[in-house]
Amino acid sequence: MKLLEERIIRDGKVLSDDILKVDSFLNQQIDTYLIDEMGREFCRLFSDCGITKVLTIEASGIAVAAFTAWHFGVPMVIAKKTVSSNMSGDMYSTHVHSFTKNRDYDAVVTKDYLCANDRLLIIDDFLASGSALKGLISLAELAGAKVCGAGIVIEKVYQGGGNLLRNIGIRVESLAKIESMSVKDGIVFSD
Amino acid sequence: MKLLEERIIRDGKVLSDDILKVDSFLNQQIDTYLIDEMGREFCRLFSDCGITKVLTIEASGIAVAAFTAWHFGVPMVIAKKTVSSNMSGDMYSTHVHSFTKNRDYDAVVTKDYLCANDRLLIIDDFLASGSALKGLISLAELAGAKVCGAGIVIEKVYQGGGNLLRNIGIRVESLAKIESMSVKDGIVFSD
Repeated sequence: MKLLEERIIRDGKVLSDDILKVDSFLNQQIDTYLIDEMGREFCRLFSDCGITKVLTIEASGIAVAAFTAWHFGVPMVIAKKTVSSNMSGDMYSTHVHSFTKNRDYDAVVTKDYLCANDRLLIIDDFLASGSALKGLISLAELAGAKVCGAGIVIEKVYQGGGNLLRNIGIRVESLAKIESMSVKDGIVFSD
Repeated sequence: MKLLEERIIRDGKVLSDDILKVDSFLNQQIDTYLIDEMGREFCRLFSDCGITKVLTIEASGIAVAAFTAWHFGVPMVIAKKTVSSNMSGDMYSTHVHSFTKNRDYDAVVTKDYLCANDRLLIIDDFLASGSALKGLISLAELAGAKVCGAGIVIEKVYQGGGNLLRNIGIRVESLAKIESMSVKDGIVFSD
C-alpha cells in the first residue's frame, strides 16, 4: 500500500535494527483517515472469503481492526491479554510468548464470541516472529472457526513469522513488507 | 441515544448493582455499525467546538474514539496505562486510581502528541467515579491544551463522577445515562 509505505518513510523512526517506531500515526497518535483506508484495503483483499468476524488482540491493532470490520459490515472480536488468567466465564485461552517484550501472557476470548460457523479475518498492526498471530489462530482453532487469513499493517519479513505462517497454509496479506531495516541504511521494502 | 439504550436493555447483563456487562457489543465483541453511529453522534454534539484531536485511554474506549475522530477528520491520541512508568521519551504522566479494579496506574502520553493549541474531545466507554476521565483532563492540562468536553458511551449517574465533573465546568455528554441499576429491578435510564 503506497500511502502507508510513504508514511512510514516520512514519519517512522528506526530506533534499532529491530524496532520501528510508528506511534505518530499508527500506535499512539492515530491517523484515522489512514486507518480507514487500511480497513478498505483489507476488505478488498479478502472480499471473496465470506468473512463473518474480524479478530484482533488488544491493544494496538484495535483501531485498524474496527475499521476493517466496519467495511465488511461484521463485528470485531478483541482477544484480551492477561498475565495470569483470572477472568470469569467460559473462555478459550492460549499461551503466547512475546519476543519483543520478553514476557509470557495468555490470550483469551469469551467462548460466546467465536463459533464453529465463523469465517475469521485476523488483523494486527505488526508481524515479526508471529507469536501473537499464532495465538489468535489457536483461539480460532479451539472454537472450530475457519481462519480465512491474516491482514497485517507492517510485516518485518526478515523476522520470519509471516513466511512461517504462509508455509503452513495461512493466507497473510501485509500492507507494508519490510525486507530489511537498520539505523544506518534505513528501511527497504519488499518488491 | 435510543439505539444504544435499546441495545443495553436487550443485550446488557446486570451482574451486580455496580457491574453492567456489555461485552457482547461494546467491550469484547464490538458492533461496528453501532460504534460508527456513536462516533457520528459525538461529532454532532461537539460540532461547534473546533475539535483538533480526540483523546482516549487504552483499551476499551479505542474503537469508539477512533470512529469519533474519523467523523471529525482529526487524529486520535491514546493515553497508555502503565503500572509503573517505564516508557522512554518525553511524556506527560498522571496518577489514576481505578475503583473498579482497585489498583493504581499511571496514564501517560508522549508530549509530541498533545500541544497548547489543541482543542480536545475526550472519549471513553464508561463513566462511574470519573477517575480515568480526571486523569485524561490532567494530561490535557499538563500540555496546556483545551478540553472542550467529554463524550461517554455509558454513564452510571448514581456513581457521581459525571456530575462532579459538570460541577467544575467540564461539558460531559453521555449517550446512555443510567440513573439506577440492580440485579432485582434492572436498569433505569435518566430522563
